[in-house]
Amino acid sequence: MTFAGLRNDALLRALRREPATRTPVWLMRQAGRYLPEYRATRARAGSFLTMAKTPELACEVTLQPLARFDLDAAILFSDILTVPDAMGLGLYFVEGEGPKFQRPVRSAADVAKLAVPDMGRELRYVMDAVALCRRELSGRVPLIGFSGSPWTLACYMIEGGGSDNFSIIKAMMLDDPATLHRLLDVVTDAVIAYLWAQRDAGAQALQVFDTWGGVLAPHHYREFSLPYLTRIAEALRAGRQKTEDRGQNGEQPGNLQQEPLHDAEHIPLILFGKGNAPYLEELAASGADAIGVDWLVSLEDARRRTQGRVGLQGNLDPAVLYGSPAAIGAEVRRTLADYARGGDGSLTGLVFNLGHGLSPDMDPEHVRALVDAVHAHPQA
Amino acid sequence: MTFAGLRNDALLRALRREPATRTPVWLMRQAGRYLPEYRATRARAGSFLTMAKTPELACEVTLQPLARFDLDAAILFSDILTVPDAMGLGLYFVEGEGPKFQRPVRSAADVAKLAVPDMGRELRYVMDAVALCRRELSGRVPLIGFSGSPWTLACYMIEGGGSDNFSIIKAMMLDDPATLHRLLDVVTDAVIAYLWAQRDAGAQALQVFDTWGGVLAPHHYREFSLPYLTRIAEALRAGRQKTEDRGQNGEQPGNLQQEPLHDAEHIPLILFGKGNAPYLEELAASGADAIGVDWLVSLEDARRRTQGRVGLQGNLDPAVLYGSPAAIGAEVRRTLADYARGGDGSLTGLVFNLGHGLSPDMDPEHVRALVDAVHAHPQA
Repeated sequence: MTFAGLRNDALLRALRREPATRTPVWLMRQAGRYLPEYRATRARAGSFLTMAKTPELACEVTLQPLARFDLDAAILFSDILTVPDAMGLGLYFVEGEGPKFQRPVRSAADVAKLAVPDMGRELRYVMDAVALCRRELSGRVPLIGFSGSPWTLACYMIEGGGSDNFSIIKAMMLDDPATLHRLLDVVTDAVIAYLWAQRDAGAQALQVFDTWGGVLAPHHYREFSLPYLTRIAEALRAGRQKTEDRGQNGEQPGNLQQEPLHDAEHIPLILFGKGNAPYLEELAASGADAIGVDWLVSLEDARRRTQGRVGLQGNLDPAVLYGSPAAIGAEVRRTLADYARGGDGSLTGLVFNLGHGLSPDMDPEHVRALVDAVHAHPQA
Repeated sequence: MTFAGLRNDALLRALRREPATRTPVWLMRQAGRYLPEYRATRARAGSFLTMAKTPELACEVTLQPLARFDLDAAILFSDILTVPDAMGLGLYFVEGEGPKFQRPVRSAADVAKLAVPDMGRELRYVMDAVALCRRELSGRVPLIGFSGSPWTLACYMIEGGGSDNFSIIKAMMLDDPATLHRLLDVVTDAVIAYLWAQRDAGAQALQVFDTWGGVLAPHHYREFSLPYLTRIAEALRAGRQKTEDRGQNGEQPGNLQQEPLHDAEHIPLILFGKGNAPYLEELAASGADAIGVDWLVSLEDARRRTQGRVGLQGNLDPAVLYGSPAAIGAEVRRTLADYARGGDGSLTGLVFNLGHGLSPDMDPEHVRALVDAVHAHPQA
């Protein structure tokens, strides 16, 4: 299908590291509980999963923050655990406790049963939501699709939910690393297929969330997270498993092709990781277009260390939103100045974001102050 | 009073960066719930606070891990929140929720009421426990005293307990930094007096826990945590507020003296911080004797960056204890090899520890495997 032309390409220009006329800004979890209209949709849906699995509702909340704020991108409303759910683990939510799996992966036999899900069947609802969002956006701003990273998905799959200490996956990492690698391997294949399918459905940029890479010691990060992130970036760049565009409503599974990708068909990939600052040089060499960083590194440092090889996304401490609008403005300006100082003084290659997601107790008016402060700042 | 001569000085030699004959090892939270004998004492005491505030019970649990494992130091069993408790905030514990304060500090008026507590009165129970531990240790290994860092104590004092996002203290940091600095100032004075008093009571080394410094963006860490850590290190080195030894049972408040410290009277200070890896160069210049690091940096890197200016303490991922004894041994050897590779190949200046504390669900036999693996490793 064809979509309307893109009227605000600030995000894509930044991800291609083209001179900026406007610093793009979007915010992780910008469609979320801090918005009363989100809470209203959530109440109507009855459950988080119903909302995520119903394309019309997912699209509705995806667009909500754009109606309020001058944001430069939409990010699909979904959950990072859709892929393991589609692999048969049985995702469910307990109020106040976060996501859980009915059937966590604990043994080599459990791992052997895992397979890449069929994107047109088990994950069709995601692709339908992508296509619907893209249509509804009508070229206003680009749509970002996303996935959890293999390591982060493995954490939830093995622990069976969130964890304070990752004791089960780390025990497997130490005592049966081959089984963990087999799991990461199939999950990586699934993530690549999932990102391709989102691209085919209409996503114009992609982000991988490596939320838990930062709990690993450096030698473990380099063995269990980084190589799989790199494989994803390489696969998306190489054009493996390129699929033809689907029919308008996504009914037809795409035709798999192994042909290389033409340059014009490449859509940018952002690798976001909490705690990824020690690995910026390696991440910049992964093949990704941009690296998303948390607030524990200055953008001056991050830019200097990546030397314009990639774009950078970040990195205001989300807790800055608990401060006054004046303080938020000052911290935004400091962040922009940091980035400028790390390079040629310009803001080329910067996507403004938080270092992590928005929280439910944040004030939407403070979010507005942030977005407006980014756009009020001169470009150089 | 005089104490028995020290028979195992491996810790103090490492902290002075003298050639090692044995790599000293102790473990954060080595006296804790993972030990059945600790749980028995805790049950007899009735509450955590009774145990911490009764010198005989605090001493009993301080010594318990030494009866089991070949550890090279004892660390006083206490809580980092004793100082704010003595400042009148009303420390209490809710089962399963961690520490809380009845009267958190929220305003400039609250801060104005804070004063350095009298170490011989409000914190006498800590000093009595230190003296008793030192006597009971009878020179077997050195006794480490400790305090929370000013920033970390301020987090609890302002949030009123633990926090996921530090929203209250970060809002104060942004909107009323002068008030936060006044709080940090008086807390720093209190921490310095507290560490001196522990030294006077018999502590042979000191550690400051900056548990929450790592939640700060770099410019905030350098404004709200690092300078106060440096002030503590400088004060302990300069000999400010040196007090005469107390009477045997600590009844007499020490005589305050402003005289400089003689070299022989200096006792080593370890600055531990979760997430402090980005600041190792600055911490090495603080005046501290050693820097304790978490597991998110390799000791090879840490040693190279600090160039023998300080000792290093750490840094096994505590979750390694969920692995098998064989895996624990392998990770211990890797950690030691990392440290050796970062310098002249020796283990001089290394205090082996975890990157954070032991957890209640850890197996004491795995702790034994760790301690024994450190001591089984050749020195160079």
